[in-house]
Amino acid sequence: MGIVGTTDLKTSGAPIPLYGVDDKLVRELSTALGNGQAATATNLIAEIHGADQADIFERLSPSLRRRFKDLLLDQVQPEFWVNIDEGLRVALFCDMESYKISTLVQKLETDDAVRLLGDLRARDRSEILKCVSEPTRALFEEALCYPEDTAGRLMRREKVTVPEHWKVGDVIDFLTDVDELPEALHNLFVVDPLHSPVGYIPVYKLLGVSREEPISPLIVRDIKVLPVMTDKEEVGLFFRQYGYVSASVVDADGVMLGVITIDDVVTVIDEEAEEDILKLAGVQGDDFYDAVIATTRARISWLLVNLLTVTLSALVIGFFDTEIEKLVALAILMPIVTALGGNAGTQALTVAVRAIATKELTVNNTARTIGKEILVGGINGLILATILLFIVGFWFSDVGLGAVFAMAIIINMVVAGFIGVAVPMALYRSGIDPAVASSVLVTAVTDIVGFFCFLGLAAWLIF
Amino acid sequence: MGIVGTTDLKTSGAPIPLYGVDDKLVRELSTALGNGQAATATNLIAEIHGADQADIFERLSPSLRRRFKDLLLDQVQPEFWVNIDEGLRVALFCDMESYKISTLVQKLETDDAVRLLGDLRARDRSEILKCVSEPTRALFEEALCYPEDTAGRLMRREKVTVPEHWKVGDVIDFLTDVDELPEALHNLFVVDPLHSPVGYIPVYKLLGVSREEPISPLIVRDIKVLPVMTDKEEVGLFFRQYGYVSASVVDADGVMLGVITIDDVVTVIDEEAEEDILKLAGVQGDDFYDAVIATTRARISWLLVNLLTVTLSALVIGFFDTEIEKLVALAILMPIVTALGGNAGTQALTVAVRAIATKELTVNNTARTIGKEILVGGINGLILATILLFIVGFWFSDVGLGAVFAMAIIINMVVAGFIGVAVPMALYRSGIDPAVASSVLVTAVTDIVGFFCFLGLAAWLIF
Repeated sequence: MGIVGTTDLKTSGAPIPLYGVDDKLVRELSTALGNGQAATATNLIAEIHGADQADIFERLSPSLRRRFKDLLLDQVQPEFWVNIDEGLRVALFCDMESYKISTLVQKLETDDAVRLLGDLRARDRSEILKCVSEPTRALFEEALCYPEDTAGRLMRREKVTVPEHWKVGDVIDFLTDVDELPEALHNLFVVDPLHSPVGYIPVYKLLGVSREEPISPLIVRDIKVLPVMTDKEEVGLFFRQYGYVSASVVDADGVMLGVITIDDVVTVIDEEAEEDILKLAGVQGDDFYDAVIATTRARISWLLVNLLTVTLSALVIGFFDTEIEKLVALAILMPIVTALGGNAGTQALTVAVRAIATKELTVNNTARTIGKEILVGGINGLILATILLFIVGFWFSDVGLGAVFAMAIIINMVVAGFIGVAVPMALYRSGIDPAVASSVLVTAVTDIVGFFCFLGLAAWLIF
Repeated sequence: MGIVGTTDLKTSGAPIPLYGVDDKLVRELSTALGNGQAATATNLIAEIHGADQADIFERLSPSLRRRFKDLLLDQVQPEFWVNIDEGLRVALFCDMESYKISTLVQKLETDDAVRLLGDLRARDRSEILKCVSEPTRALFEEALCYPEDTAGRLMRREKVTVPEHWKVGDVIDFLTDVDELPEALHNLFVVDPLHSPVGYIPVYKLLGVSREEPISPLIVRDIKVLPVMTDKEEVGLFFRQYGYVSASVVDADGVMLGVITIDDVVTVIDEEAEEDILKLAGVQGDDFYDAVIATTRARISWLLVNLLTVTLSALVIGFFDTEIEKLVALAILMPIVTALGGNAGTQALTVAVRAIATKELTVNNTARTIGKEILVGGINGLILATILLFIVGFWFSDVGLGAVFAMAIIINMVVAGFIGVAVPMALYRSGIDPAVASSVLVTAVTDIVGFFCFLGLAAWLIF
C-alpha cells in the first residue's frame, strides 16, 4: 500500500505531494532517458500507477518523449493509455502496430476501449478491430455504431442483470458462475421479462441475507433511466442531479442495453467544464500538449473573427475623425467606455452560459434574467460613471465631455447586461453552442455600441 | 419506476426531457401557487425527486418562491436541501426555526449535513447544533473543526472498517449487526491494529465465498490515501487520477478518520470548474439566483480594478495627444492592436490556468511552455499583421503607418504569449489563485504595451 507523502504528512507545513509523481522523479527519469539508461528508467517507472506513468510522460520534453516511446512504452500499464492526453495517445498509436493496439484494448474495460478506438481514424480502427477476437469485437463494433458524445458510447456493455422473481441464493450462484464480473459491480440491475430495468439492488444488501429470501424487497425501484442517444453532457447532469453511482441505459423500447458508472461520468463532467472554459476564451480544445503549428492553427480562427469585429469598430471610429481631431480627449477616453462595457458583458454572459449548461436558464426565466442583468449593468454603470466624472473633470476640466462620457458608459453597461444574456440564449435556441460564439459577439456589440455612443453623443452635444 | 420521457423516446426527433422537471410542470405549479391552491400544488410536487423539487423552486419567480415557502416547504424531501442553490438555501434557513433545521440535518448523511451547516453563520449553527442529539452532534462538531474546502469536511465519518485477520463470516455477521449501514457501502476498508488503512474489499467479492475463508486474499492492497487536510480541489484530481469509487481519509499518523465517496467528489469537481470559469470572467461566485443588489456588489469589484487599469492605458494614450491630433488614423487603429493582443493573451492564459489546475503546467515545463506561446503569438501576429497591412494600405494609403501598425501588432502578440503563461504561473507560485487575477493583469499589460508600442513607434518613426 502506498500512503502518499507519508513523511510529508508528519512535517506539517510542507506541501503534500498527492500524486506519486513529483518533479524529482521526472528529473531523474529525464536524466536516465537522456543517457539512454534503459534499466534505470524501467526501474523508475516500474512500481508506479498507470495514471501517474501517463502524467510523467506528459511532463517530458518532446525529445525525451521519443526516448520514452523507444525504451519504456512496452512496460507501461493499461491505465497509462486511458489517462494520457488524447493528442499524445493518437500520435503514439500512429507508430504502433495494429496487433499491439488490439492486445491493449482487449485488456481494458469496454467503455475505455471504445473511447480509445473512437479517437482513431476509421481506417486505423478497422485494422485494429480485425485483430480483436470475437465476441469482444462485436461488442466494440456495436458501441462504435452510436454517435460520439452519446450515452451509447459511454456505457459498459457487460450486462449482468437478474430477473425480479429470483431468490438471494439464485443471485449469488449466478454471480459466482459468471466468468468475469465487471469491475466495480456495486449495483445489480433487475429487469422484467422484456428486459426493461425494474430497479437495482445495492450488492452489499445481499450480504447476510438467507439464500431462501426473495430479492424483491431489496430492490430500489424508484430509478430513472438514460435513453441510449442522450448527449454525454446530459448524462453528467443526470448523475449529478440524482446522485447515482450507476444508471441503466435503454433503447427506444425501454430495453436495457448497458450500464454507465459514475467513474466514467467524472471524466465527462470534467471534460465538459474544460471545454466550456476554453471555448469562452476562444480556444478550440485543450492544446497544451499540441505542437506550435497545431496550436497556431487552432488559435488563429478566433483571432480572425476578432480581426473582423475590431475592424468594424475601427470603421465606427473613422466616422468621427474630424471630432477626434478637434478634441483628442475623445481618443484618450473612448477605450475606457468599451473596456468597461466588454467586461460587464463578459460577466453577464459567463453566468448565462453556465446557467444554460446546467439548465437553470430556460425560456421561462429568460426575460426575468435579462431584466436583472440590465438593472445590474445600469447600477454599476452609474457607480463607474460617477467615479470617472471626477477623474475626467480634474484631467480635462470639461463638463460637457464629462457628461457625454458618463452617459456613454451607463448606456453601454445597460446594453452589456442585455446582450450578455440575450446572445447566449439566442445561440442556444438556434442550436449553436453558446460557449463557442458568445464572447466574440458580445464584445463586438459592446465595442461598436461603446464607440458609437461616446463619439456620436460628443458629435451631437459638444460640437 | 420512472422511465423519463418514455413517450418522447418513441417519437424520434423530439427532445427528451431527462429531468422530471419540464416547463409545463413549472407553469402549472406557478398557477396553483399564484391562486393559493395549496392542495393542487402539493399534488404536483408530491411524487417528484428532491433534486427536481429544488430545480422547480429555483425556476420560480421570487414572489412565487415566497408562496412555495409558505405552502410547500414542509413537504419537500431531504434531497431538496442538498441540491438547492446555496444562496437560496441560506435565505430559507434564515426564516426557519432551529429545531426544524436540526431535524432536517439529522435525516441527511453526515457529509451533506456538515456542508449545509458549514454555509451558515457560526451563531445560527450553534443554535441548531444545540437541538441535535448525541452522538450525532459530536460527529458534526468534529467535522466542522476542519477548515472549509478540506478532505476533513468532505468525508463521511461513519467508520465501518474490519481487521485484516477476519474471516468472510465475521465480516458478514459484523455488517448484519451494524445498526445502520452507510448508504452506498461499495468498498469495505480494512485496517491494521493501529487503525491505518491496509486496503479495501469490494463488497460484491464477498458474495458466494464460504464463511470460513479468510478475507485476506480479497483485499485490494495497492491503494492511496488522502490526508485529512487535503484541499478539496486536490481531492477531485486524486479521484479522477486513480478512478476510485471511495478513498480513506487519514490523520497525520496515518490513522483512518473517514471515507470520501465519489458522489460527493462529482459535486466538488463541478463546483471547482464552475468557480474557475466564473473567476476568469471576473465573477466572484455563481450569482444566478442572487438579487440585483447582491449581484451588483459582487460584480463591481472587478469592474473597479478594470477601471484602474483602463485609466492607466488612457494615461499612456494621453502622452501621445499631439501625435493623434496630427494623424487621427492612430486613434482609429489603436483599438485593433490592443484587442488582438488581449484576445491572444486570454487564449494563452486560459490554457495555462487550466494546466496549472490539473497539475500539467509545473515549474519544470514553464520555460518550455512560455517558449511555445511566444512562438504561437509571433506566428499569429505575422499572419494578422500581413492581412491588416493590406486593409490599412487601402484605407489610409500610408506605408509608414502600415509598417508601424504591423510591428506593434507582432510585438503585442509576442508579449501576450509570454504574459499569458508568466502571469498565472507567477501568481500560482506566490500562493494566489491564478484564475482570479490573471485576466485583469494580462489584459492590462496587453493594453498598455499595445498603446505604447503603436503610438510610441509612430511618434519615433513617422513624425
